[in-house]
Amino acid sequence: MPASPFDNAIYRDLFGDAEVGNLFSATAEVRAMMLVQGTLAKVQGTLGIIPEISGAAIHRASLELQIDPGGLSKATGQNGVVVPALVTAFRAEMKAPEHAQYLHWGATSQDVMDTGLILRLRAVVAIYDLRLRALVRTLGGLASQHADLAMVARTYGQAATPTSFGAVVASWGAPLIRHLDRLDALSPGLLQVSLSGAAGTLSVMGPQGGLGAQLRADFATALNLNDPGSSWHSMRDTIAEFSAWMTLVNGSIAKMGADLIAMTQSGIDEVTLSNSGASSTMPQKSNPILPSLLVALADQTTALNGTIQGALIHRQQRDGAAWINEWIALPQICMATARTLRGAQELAGGLHPNAERMAGAIDATRGLIFAEALSFALSAHMPRPKAQAATKALCQQVSNGTKTLGALAAQTWPDIDFKDLFDANGNLGQAPVDARNFAARAKTI
Amino acid sequence: MPASPFDNAIYRDLFGDAEVGNLFSATAEVRAMMLVQGTLAKVQGTLGIIPEISGAAIHRASLELQIDPGGLSKATGQNGVVVPALVTAFRAEMKAPEHAQYLHWGATSQDVMDTGLILRLRAVVAIYDLRLRALVRTLGGLASQHADLAMVARTYGQAATPTSFGAVVASWGAPLIRHLDRLDALSPGLLQVSLSGAAGTLSVMGPQGGLGAQLRADFATALNLNDPGSSWHSMRDTIAEFSAWMTLVNGSIAKMGADLIAMTQSGIDEVTLSNSGASSTMPQKSNPILPSLLVALADQTTALNGTIQGALIHRQQRDGAAWINEWIALPQICMATARTLRGAQELAGGLHPNAERMAGAIDATRGLIFAEALSFALSAHMPRPKAQAATKALCQQVSNGTKTLGALAAQTWPDIDFKDLFDANGNLGQAPVDARNFAARAKTI
Amino acid sequence: MPASPFDNAIYRDLFGDAEVGNLFSATAEVRAMMLVQGTLAKVQGTLGIIPEISGAAIHRASLELQIDPGGLSKATGQNGVVVPALVTAFRAEMKAPEHAQYLHWGATSQDVMDTGLILRLRAVVAIYDLRLRALVRTLGGLASQHADLAMVARTYGQAATPTSFGAVVASWGAPLIRHLDRLDALSPGLLQVSLSGAAGTLSVMGPQGGLGAQLRADFATALNLNDPGSSWHSMRDTIAEFSAWMTLVNGSIAKMGADLIAMTQSGIDEVTLSNSGASSTMPQKSNPILPSLLVALADQTTALNGTIQGALIHRQQRDGAAWINEWIALPQICMATARTLRGAQELAGGLHPNAERMAGAIDATRGLIFAEALSFALSAHMPRPKAQAATKALCQQVSNGTKTLGALAAQTWPDIDFKDLFDANGNLGQAPVDARNFAARAKTI
Amino acid sequence: MPASPFDNAIYRDLFGDAEVGNLFSATAEVRAMMLVQGTLAKVQGTLGIIPEISGAAIHRASLELQIDPGGLSKATGQNGVVVPALVTAFRAEMKAPEHAQYLHWGATSQDVMDTGLILRLRAVVAIYDLRLRALVRTLGGLASQHADLAMVARTYGQAATPTSFGAVVASWGAPLIRHLDRLDALSPGLLQVSLSGAAGTLSVMGPQGGLGAQLRADFATALNLNDPGSSWHSMRDTIAEFSAWMTLVNGSIAKMGADLIAMTQSGIDEVTLSNSGASSTMPQKSNPILPSLLVALADQTTALNGTIQGALIHRQQRDGAAWINEWIALPQICMATARTLRGAQELAGGLHPNAERMAGAIDATRGLIFAEALSFALSAHMPRPKAQAATKALCQQVSNGTKTLGALAAQTWPDIDFKDLFDANGNLGQAPVDARNFAARAKTI
Repeated sequence: MPASPFDNAIYRDLFGDAEVGNLFSATAEVRAMMLVQGTLAKVQGTLGIIPEISGAAIHRASLELQIDPGGLSKATGQNGVVVPALVTAFRAEMKAPEHAQYLHWGATSQDVMDTGLILRLRAVVAIYDLRLRALVRTLGGLASQHADLAMVARTYGQAATPTSFGAVVASWGAPLIRHLDRLDALSPGLLQVSLSGAAGTLSVMGPQGGLGAQLRADFATALNLNDPGSSWHSMRDTIAEFSAWMTLVNGSIAKMGADLIAMTQSGIDEVTLSNSGASSTMPQKSNPILPSLLVALADQTTALNGTIQGALIHRQQRDGAAWINEWIALPQICMATARTLRGAQELAGGLHPNAERMAGAIDATRGLIFAEALSFALSAHMPRPKAQAATKALCQQVSNGTKTLGALAAQTWPDIDFKDLFDANGNLGQAPVDARNFAARAKTI
Repeated sequence: MPASPFDNAIYRDLFGDAEVGNLFSATAEVRAMMLVQGTLAKVQGTLGIIPEISGAAIHRASLELQIDPGGLSKATGQNGVVVPALVTAFRAEMKAPEHAQYLHWGATSQDVMDTGLILRLRAVVAIYDLRLRALVRTLGGLASQHADLAMVARTYGQAATPTSFGAVVASWGAPLIRHLDRLDALSPGLLQVSLSGAAGTLSVMGPQGGLGAQLRADFATALNLNDPGSSWHSMRDTIAEFSAWMTLVNGSIAKMGADLIAMTQSGIDEVTLSNSGASSTMPQKSNPILPSLLVALADQTTALNGTIQGALIHRQQRDGAAWINEWIALPQICMATARTLRGAQELAGGLHPNAERMAGAIDATRGLIFAEALSFALSAHMPRPKAQAATKALCQQVSNGTKTLGALAAQTWPDIDFKDLFDANGNLGQAPVDARNFAARAKTI
Repeated sequence: MPASPFDNAIYRDLFGDAEVGNLFSATAEVRAMMLVQGTLAKVQGTLGIIPEISGAAIHRASLELQIDPGGLSKATGQNGVVVPALVTAFRAEMKAPEHAQYLHWGATSQDVMDTGLILRLRAVVAIYDLRLRALVRTLGGLASQHADLAMVARTYGQAATPTSFGAVVASWGAPLIRHLDRLDALSPGLLQVSLSGAAGTLSVMGPQGGLGAQLRADFATALNLNDPGSSWHSMRDTIAEFSAWMTLVNGSIAKMGADLIAMTQSGIDEVTLSNSGASSTMPQKSNPILPSLLVALADQTTALNGTIQGALIHRQQRDGAAWINEWIALPQICMATARTLRGAQELAGGLHPNAERMAGAIDATRGLIFAEALSFALSAHMPRPKAQAATKALCQQVSNGTKTLGALAAQTWPDIDFKDLFDANGNLGQAPVDARNFAARAKTI
Repeated sequence: MPASPFDNAIYRDLFGDAEVGNLFSATAEVRAMMLVQGTLAKVQGTLGIIPEISGAAIHRASLELQIDPGGLSKATGQNGVVVPALVTAFRAEMKAPEHAQYLHWGATSQDVMDTGLILRLRAVVAIYDLRLRALVRTLGGLASQHADLAMVARTYGQAATPTSFGAVVASWGAPLIRHLDRLDALSPGLLQVSLSGAAGTLSVMGPQGGLGAQLRADFATALNLNDPGSSWHSMRDTIAEFSAWMTLVNGSIAKMGADLIAMTQSGIDEVTLSNSGASSTMPQKSNPILPSLLVALADQTTALNGTIQGALIHRQQRDGAAWINEWIALPQICMATARTLRGAQELAGGLHPNAERMAGAIDATRGLIFAEALSFALSAHMPRPKAQAATKALCQQVSNGTKTLGALAAQTWPDIDFKDLFDANGNLGQAPVDARNFAARAKTI
């Protein structure tokens, strides 16, 4: 039985993601590698590198044969790569040795595995793109709806000034729009074939050796991937860039998670969640599970990303340890990111700000949240340092007593008309604008 | 199908470890938690906290019932913890509501999960202990056998002085003996029950509340674990200490892996491995898969350990994110460590030093490896700085020419008898002693 | 001007620690290495490895000479290690070539640097020990004083059950006592000399080579350090173990920091700090700087520890990259830990729980915090599942209405006498005991 | 004295970089923040937010005043941010309270610090850009010069097939060209002002509050930075993206370092370095210091990047711990990257491939390096599986005997004309093309 958290029967609904998880199953990996082998053979047949009839036969077989991944495990454990066993099994299953001999012609394990990976990452990228867009739109709706909903802005956990809930939602969503742009920018580099032969030189490809570049280009075209123009066996920057991107996505979304843990705290209660967790012993509990999960997934992603970045130190023409690090870490980062995106959508779709509690939190500061505004208002009547010192003194009185800052200010400067200075709605500054700007952009995503 | 590397059908022989993997399967986790529930009820019955007959019934049921982990997944995804669903299923399956109602009496999810984890970690610790001892003994045998086998000691990859292969093996094995001592030191702290109730105070346990401490002690005795003396819900140092220990083990063993990657390099070839990997396209290849795997597993372990250490920042009385980080990272570190230990044993049991190549590497330095020795020998005849400068000058001549350092020295100082200075076997220093000392200690492990 | 955060003129009071920082200054490093060289020469003189008079002269010079670290920088940049330049400068400054030639006799850079490091780590360990003890005592005082001060225990940020502030303080302090024990356990292994010569074999030490072990033992005795019994040039487990220990300490203390960030939040305000930070624009602000700093230092420490653990993969007989990783990371972890301990002491010495706010937070749950207790009380009158369901239903009513759980319970079950069930002080369970137990142990530290 | 590795008097030439280090000195930070304050005041004066004459006075003072960073340290230690002390000192130094009162009008510490940081990062980006371009050109020259220089391609450290040294150099340089493109893509987002006031809403800016957006735009124009369009106080993705980019750069360059450690090994000796390190005791040593340094700096960078990515979880409107993590880690990553780029240039400018040793390494495989080529040549005469098996059998004979693969092949298949199959120069495949393509692109950089 699976022991890993993403697959463990108990935890797969909590941590796993069926859609992206499937892409990293052994079946999907075998299927992708067979598609790579079949396409390679077909293109080689067309170019005359191998007999066209054999290319066609291999291609057809690659679509029809079923190879059991479990049967490849033992040899993979021995060879450290699955491809030798896959080639052997594929050839045997074809039952047409005259054609099967042309399978895997001039390619190496890394070509097959990397291209097979990229085919699946193409699907992963598409899933992320869709989910990110949906999430941005959901957040855009929230930001628009609550653009003017005043709440306490908190710095270092302390009441700072008023802001709006819509602006807070915008701060969750705006980075995601940039992440979509970044994904667009990195995808062409990521989505490329690998075809470089034994050690990166394609030396045996084609009768004159000169067909290598042509073959790689046609192979890329056939798979609708890009042609890297050279070997990338030992240059892992496009993989590492994608990993870094996923880390950014998880981190940005975990900020929403952390904010929601703070906002759902007992005693704060500014947001309620549709999806929360029950306790085994406390009947009253409604735990913010998804926000906690988002924070944990970001922590995991950041750690795993470290090993992918470390794998940039890919020694010589193929580095077993560096490559294995990718095999272990990359599927997990991809699954975690998928879960994060899905969890964020569930969360965003089910969050309900509590306007009353938000107003209550503003009131509970007894006007201290307007201290900066007061100091500026007073600056029209006295030098700013004096205004600041006077405000600070009043804040001290508020903290030590029971009066509000507004009451003390009115009492201290009876001649000054503070108007709506002590009204949060009049002190939202750019917050509603920021919320609406984000919402408008989110609509166009 | 499992997508995680430790369970994926293609990779499970490469990355997985059946013995430790099983302990982290959903089945084993459910079984351990049921044992915890059953034992708790039994002890509570004995103490009169719940009816003795109900305690006995629950205990019996805990041994007999089969609860399908898959049936718990959906609720776990919702609640973020498995225990509510487990309690519900357990109660339902008992078909004896009059007893079942006493199940999970006063405990909380974390008590059940943590104690269930510790029961499995006890088995993990025992497996590690056995494997480490076996590995130390295997390395001890190698060190003893090759205590006098001269080879090049390399610093910064450069030939430095002679050493012996046995001393190198001792440098792999000696830290493992210390790791065994460290495991002994940390185990009592790690292997403790958790029983603290909803939020760490055991407040509802027993009619007067005063039975809590007694219950925890008896519960610990019944499970043959230690009594922590208080709640450790939010004090995760014993878990983090174990994770740090596993990281040390993986790192130490990866040094052996890295050395073997270096020693098996084409052109160095000082060691051959019984277990090596074939290429999909290069008939001559024999890749050092296990050494590469050991290095990669250490990299992964170090990264995952970072998230466990981060989870020491366990906020308030239970921190969802911090705890989830443990759930994701700990099983993987444990599985990786198990694979590392098994891989190291396979490797150590199948390595063959090539004395001829080792001697050849010494010869290939054309005596430069004896430069330090020469500089000391000359120091008996001239001031040391002069001796060092003279030796350096000769080294330069060796590098630029074809003569050996010995020949040049004899020619330069015909009156000095250098004896066996230019013989590696006479220049092994403490290396053979270190090898034999390690071998002797390894025998007693 | 220093650009690094620990030394930068702006930030050194925030991030730095003068006492431990000094130990990692260039001056302290040079001084330690000279002490190593002087002691080595003296011991070698006594053993007859070098002329006794030369040993004495070098030893005297090592105490008297002043070598400017800045003068070593350029050569260090070139050689990658400081020792060649140090030996050259030392010899030149001695102005007694007949003795100076015996300086650094048979040792290598790593012996001098590692032993010099250990001498300073001995002082670091002593500082940590003192600070940890003081911190434990301060926390013990707090735990004792507030053992019965009821407050909300929070799990997932949600009000769970009552606990006591003293018990929370105990949860900060108890791991520190274990860390003191761990420090005692690891110190003997850490505090050892390195003396193994060019590549770990001590091959040139002594006329017959056989004096090596004796020399290392005497050298250790002279420095009051332990004798490792062999080379540890490439076995870095004792360094890595110490790094892991510092990571544990920082993590445990950061939990206190994180709890205090939560407790000082506006709207929670359960603790006030003597040391807090002002804002550049908000007159009312009082920011929890030290708690934030503790969390950040733990994050940094965890990251740096990862590179130290990675440096366990110390290739062959000396690995430049692995060793350099220690040089960069270890001083920073040590300084961060020193700052953490000092910051924690400042914080613990200046924290004031607000009993009124704590009581208010309990009241604000309108009895929901007693839901588990109610469910158990009802279990005396009905089957537990029914009691739980009934409690849950009442909790729902509390959440949706304005009544307290106590009022609803009294109304629902008028015949049951709930006594002091809805009084936090009667529901503290083991919390006061845990607080007092910790306080008692802290006194004996 | 500075204790941090980048500033320590002993190590600053090894680890430090004067140019980028200066940008992170306290002086440079104060200067940048004063420029921010001065520019802000000037723009505010122009917009009529503050008196124009005061704006001009502050601006002038910002250019003329000298504020001692050391004087800010104590208050920074207390407040956790430098800006309150800076504002106080600036105002006092101006000796014109009527104008000084308008200093820092409506801004907050984070605005000043972040914008001050970005001004310095602009210089950092320019330095990186220049150094990367120079490095690419140097590598381009090497690749061009050695495009046809045959050497062993190594996978898993094992001789695989021939490649060319120029192609290896191209594998170091090609990612750097992509990194330049990535830097171009991320710079506009990174190089933006921060101006959002106390808690992100710019609420007090301008008489009607409506001048905020205009002010931010003009402020950006005045500093020649971009206008973010909203607050980015709690959205740290552009900082994290830059950190991730630096991590990619360090990782890619460390691959060159790791390859050079491998190529300079004794017994391999395929490359000699102009800059290498001497030993304190071994006269013959010439250690690859720079390559080791590059690997270590990449390890450090990856670790520090983890904390920057973690700081994406920037709670609420300002998160002390997350922000402090940036302060500690970012300067170090920037300095490490600067050192990496400088070190790589020194290294690339001083490396000398040894054609004879490269040819020797090919010969030393006794033809095994041509095994794949042979298997393909034989495939023209027999089915491929049979050809592969036959080649494998011959490889075994080579390994166990003394003959070359070419000799055995000629003997086994006397009728086949293998032409130049066993000549490395005829088996370079795409390697020379890859080298020349890279060189051509490098010229245009």
